[in-house]
Amino acid sequence: MLESFFNPQGIVVFGASRDPHKLGYGLARNLVQSGYPGVVHFVNPKGGHLLGRPVYPDISQVPNPIDLAIILVPAPYVPSALEACGERGIRAAIIATGGFREVGPEGAALEAQCMEIAHRYGMRLIGPNCIGLLDTHLPLDTTFLPPPGPPAGDVAFISHSGAICAAVIDWARGQGFGLSRLVSLGNQADLSETDLLEPVADDPRTHVVTLYLEGVSDGRRFVETARRVSCRKPIVALKVGRFESGQKAVASHTGALAGSEQAFDAAFQRAGVLRADTNEEMFDWARALAWCPLPKGPNVAVLTNAGGPGVTAADALEALGLRMAVLGEETVDALRALLPPAASLHNPVDMLASASPEQYAQGLRILLADPNVDSVMVVLPPPPMFSTGAVARAIIPIIQTADKPVVVALMGERLIQEAVEHLRAARVPEYRFPERAASALTILYRRANDLQRCESPELTREEVNPQQADALLGGAAPGSWLPPEGSAALLETYGIRAPRGEVARSPQEAASIGQRVGFPLALKIVSPDIAHKSDVGGILLNVISPEAAAQGYETLMANVAARQPQARLEGVLVQPMIPGGQEVIVGVVRDAQFGPLVMFGSGGVEVEGLKDVAFALAPLTAPDLDDMLQRTWAGRKLGGYRNIPPADQGAVREALIRLAQLAANHPQITEIEINPLRVLSPGQGAAALDVRVRLREA
Amino acid sequence: MLESFFNPQGIVVFGASRDPHKLGYGLARNLVQSGYPGVVHFVNPKGGHLLGRPVYPDISQVPNPIDLAIILVPAPYVPSALEACGERGIRAAIIATGGFREVGPEGAALEAQCMEIAHRYGMRLIGPNCIGLLDTHLPLDTTFLPPPGPPAGDVAFISHSGAICAAVIDWARGQGFGLSRLVSLGNQADLSETDLLEPVADDPRTHVVTLYLEGVSDGRRFVETARRVSCRKPIVALKVGRFESGQKAVASHTGALAGSEQAFDAAFQRAGVLRADTNEEMFDWARALAWCPLPKGPNVAVLTNAGGPGVTAADALEALGLRMAVLGEETVDALRALLPPAASLHNPVDMLASASPEQYAQGLRILLADPNVDSVMVVLPPPPMFSTGAVARAIIPIIQTADKPVVVALMGERLIQEAVEHLRAARVPEYRFPERAASALTILYRRANDLQRCESPELTREEVNPQQADALLGGAAPGSWLPPEGSAALLETYGIRAPRGEVARSPQEAASIGQRVGFPLALKIVSPDIAHKSDVGGILLNVISPEAAAQGYETLMANVAARQPQARLEGVLVQPMIPGGQEVIVGVVRDAQFGPLVMFGSGGVEVEGLKDVAFALAPLTAPDLDDMLQRTWAGRKLGGYRNIPPADQGAVREALIRLAQLAANHPQITEIEINPLRVLSPGQGAAALDVRVRLREA
Repeated sequence: MLESFFNPQGIVVFGASRDPHKLGYGLARNLVQSGYPGVVHFVNPKGGHLLGRPVYPDISQVPNPIDLAIILVPAPYVPSALEACGERGIRAAIIATGGFREVGPEGAALEAQCMEIAHRYGMRLIGPNCIGLLDTHLPLDTTFLPPPGPPAGDVAFISHSGAICAAVIDWARGQGFGLSRLVSLGNQADLSETDLLEPVADDPRTHVVTLYLEGVSDGRRFVETARRVSCRKPIVALKVGRFESGQKAVASHTGALAGSEQAFDAAFQRAGVLRADTNEEMFDWARALAWCPLPKGPNVAVLTNAGGPGVTAADALEALGLRMAVLGEETVDALRALLPPAASLHNPVDMLASASPEQYAQGLRILLADPNVDSVMVVLPPPPMFSTGAVARAIIPIIQTADKPVVVALMGERLIQEAVEHLRAARVPEYRFPERAASALTILYRRANDLQRCESPELTREEVNPQQADALLGGAAPGSWLPPEGSAALLETYGIRAPRGEVARSPQEAASIGQRVGFPLALKIVSPDIAHKSDVGGILLNVISPEAAAQGYETLMANVAARQPQARLEGVLVQPMIPGGQEVIVGVVRDAQFGPLVMFGSGGVEVEGLKDVAFALAPLTAPDLDDMLQRTWAGRKLGGYRNIPPADQGAVREALIRLAQLAANHPQITEIEINPLRVLSPGQGAAALDVRVRLREA
Repeated sequence: MLESFFNPQGIVVFGASRDPHKLGYGLARNLVQSGYPGVVHFVNPKGGHLLGRPVYPDISQVPNPIDLAIILVPAPYVPSALEACGERGIRAAIIATGGFREVGPEGAALEAQCMEIAHRYGMRLIGPNCIGLLDTHLPLDTTFLPPPGPPAGDVAFISHSGAICAAVIDWARGQGFGLSRLVSLGNQADLSETDLLEPVADDPRTHVVTLYLEGVSDGRRFVETARRVSCRKPIVALKVGRFESGQKAVASHTGALAGSEQAFDAAFQRAGVLRADTNEEMFDWARALAWCPLPKGPNVAVLTNAGGPGVTAADALEALGLRMAVLGEETVDALRALLPPAASLHNPVDMLASASPEQYAQGLRILLADPNVDSVMVVLPPPPMFSTGAVARAIIPIIQTADKPVVVALMGERLIQEAVEHLRAARVPEYRFPERAASALTILYRRANDLQRCESPELTREEVNPQQADALLGGAAPGSWLPPEGSAALLETYGIRAPRGEVARSPQEAASIGQRVGFPLALKIVSPDIAHKSDVGGILLNVISPEAAAQGYETLMANVAARQPQARLEGVLVQPMIPGGQEVIVGVVRDAQFGPLVMFGSGGVEVEGLKDVAFALAPLTAPDLDDMLQRTWAGRKLGGYRNIPPADQGAVREALIRLAQLAANHPQITEIEINPLRVLSPGQGAAALDVRVRLREA
């Protein structure tokens, strides 16, 4: 159905203008001059001729075929134009006009009216308030931007901002890359970034999809779609609006740390979307992803003609997590035979200022042949004796036939222009300094790793009891916290060990429960009004006798009554202590966009201070688990550290998988936090010592 | 004395060549064509004429005045050329020739020979193995690089890499900034980056000094010199070689975490040097620092003509730590009167795509007049109805007369060229996307803050006892760890409270010491062979009775004997426990380059895992203390957090000041670590519970 947007048989433009100062003229001009192979018709009540074609006062006179409408009439006239399109059987329209939801309630009403018409006729809309779309290969240009359009190429761009589209189209020319397809989404009254992702990626001319996002319209659908796409073609996204999220009610450590940005990062990770920090970075990466084979590993060789550029390259590569390849003996011997005695034969390979184009070419060949080398950065400050153009010509054929990625750092401006032009024409990524070239190699390595994740399924366990969980959840009021026994019982329905303990309602009861479950005990205040028990003196540990338990009951009641007098106190939870092991925090919160978001990290009361946490979307995959455990000190520490003995890492993974599954299966859960999860010696499992579960508001 | 390098009366070139393919020709050509106002003479045994001047076979025939020699003869002939210069009374020489220390022992010997000659005659040398120096204003160009040289400007560049010089000279032209002075340092046989810093910065045409560093030759002198310079003119440095530091013996947490990079960061911080991560960043910053006034605060207003660019700018600014200014009511009213109703009047100010040059100018004037605005970013994607050149022309006069910094993000390539040229000519920093413009504003704000630090003295205390400390240190063997009582006593000579405890040599003695000092006790194994006592079960806490103390003695001895049988055990340290408070780690290690480096952060055994630490050079300044406490969770937590009561922050500062002073005063100390420093309630002080002090190797 979206085919009509990208491959229309005939196009009708509402609002085409003969006044060269009007956008309606620019649009008509671009459409005609782009070389679009179908038919183009103009509609304007004023009639007349434009660009050698008749302007029809009305769509009824426009001959067939027409299957795409582009509307640039003033906002109040858009609904009637849309209605006319619908009657005529057109099922695809781009509304370029602004003045809709973005200007306030009246505009929003107008936009709703457009959507009503579109629904009635089964039409799909791009916009309103957008600059339309481009396909440089068909070709097709529905924008009103000043010419020239972008060069044809293999990078697609989908954008929430028309101004960014305009800038990127103009900028791409100077950067030496071309676009395949471009879509400006505008207000997304109908079609969103998610809807356009597959049609744009399916274009065989598109090698990489870039996204400028100010958000996503349906988080889970975006993740599913993007994951499908990214397993075929790389997606790079710049997501802005990081600092726009407002205040939120904070009820747990997990909730406090799990902002919308953490959710986006987790979503992009699951979706295989490479998140860039800046516009330049996005397109630096896109060129490498579009033009280079992927490396098999992280080991990079650097080939250059001077020391400083080599060190700079090595620094940048290692700072980004790649490794300087250790060159094989044969490689070093071959380089020795090629280069003068003072050359540095070890990585970075410094061929000295006298390095000729032939030495660059031969050196590159030698490095590419080394099985220890996964990718190569050629660094080229202007050589004093040769032109950079000659070096570029010498290395291009080698790069083009290599099965390993090679990027080039050309350092300078005027003296490197010839090389820049040769490399761009040959589709070899070149960057001005080694730092950006290093970033490009890094993203290729990450892409190679991400592709392997396409095989990783979402992990769920069979031996869980959703019915019992629903029963437990059904008994609680919306928006409330489950009582501690209920929380523990809920976890156990998903096979997470959670010592329940018993709630004592008196000092005597605390003592007798203690005698039954065994000492030492942990005593914890029970109150629906208290989020962080330790903050109000509501926890006692290492209680070693019945007398101490009874006394402890009194102490907790007194502590909490003094510090939070209005709290309703329901008693004291009496649990046997589980000694030893390590403590971590494990939690889930439901993100409004992306659903349940799982957190793992260093627990205790200082969670927000230490910020040693990592996030992933539920349900989890095996690479998610690896990441969470690798990226946090809490995770790395599970392997043991100094006098801290190793702990049961498998049990942590299992608890994370099951917790994620629990949250994913039961949408009535808003938040779960286990702090701490006590992780015992390897093979001994883990126990959720303190569990809090909150239900969704009604 | 270095005056002759930058302002010579006459120059003699050894190795000037008539062969245009030789570097000796390039050098002669640049020197003559640069327009150098003094006299230039060529020396070459072959004689003849070059560029219309006689080539003297020998320096003896060269007429006066000559006070600078540039030597580009083959390496083996350099000493005799130098000798001839010395005899002739020349006291400044640039040795451009390579083939010295950088190629191995023979070259190193040749270099030493040159230095011997230089010392004998009191000559100063730049190089060898360098491309010389440039002054675009004198002008003077002693390089052999292909023309043209760099445009004249106000950014100075001092570099350890000649290739980076060549690249930057060429690249600067494309980036629209000029150089004032440039020095390529080569092997630094004599003059180093530190020696050249002041002569280069003193040039009134230099507004900012940029440095490409692969290290520094004398850390403390660099810090002192750079601090003196940076209090007058900004210094930006790119320091590479981050990943070159080899393995080191790790004896403490402080030692493990205090790498050479931490030392460089601390040194740059103390010196007021702004450290860039990439070459592009260094010069992006340099332009803003050279051309803009400094902001009074962190509040930025963004003025643009579209939503996406505004959000991108806001994101980038806030990610870098600046704040979006809250515009005053008058400002918003003035913008409302200026702009169409759909414009966004709040920061970022989106004037809509129709924004005219006049609206840009007027909008900028309004924002600059707002006292809540400290700086402004103008963001300009190509406006559909106006040329970017017209916008640039309209805003330039306002920017040039403003006392607040304004930077411009020009988004695009071809459509913005006219604006780029206008802004460069007017010395207004422009960047291709908002992200880089945000980085420039951030560095201006940081520079403003750094300037305030110039007033902060190094803090030392009077009531310390260095003689007593020397006496304590004198009794211990070089390379050894002080015994625990000695370590505690040493701290106390500088007024740091360190409960000494007593060493028990038997279980009975442990019990009796316990009775004397009072329970509960901490028991710690005493051994010169054990770095981390807790790793080997060498610590017992909360020992509550004489019997437990005696038993504890046996337990510790047995634990350690089992886990580290070869360790020499000298007994058990018996200390009274100091309950309550917070625990931090405080340490010093002596960096080979920069001397004592102080560490503060979260202590315990997981120091290296949590990496919640900050560093500064000893002695400390007040801003250093603020930074260390602000940048670490351990420091922020001293103010209290949830159920963690506040602790004595003043006592931590005092301990840090005194520890730094101790290390600075006594070079025989290599390493001190206090882990933990127990910080009691405000007003109650802090106590060094576990102290380790290591002496310098003989």
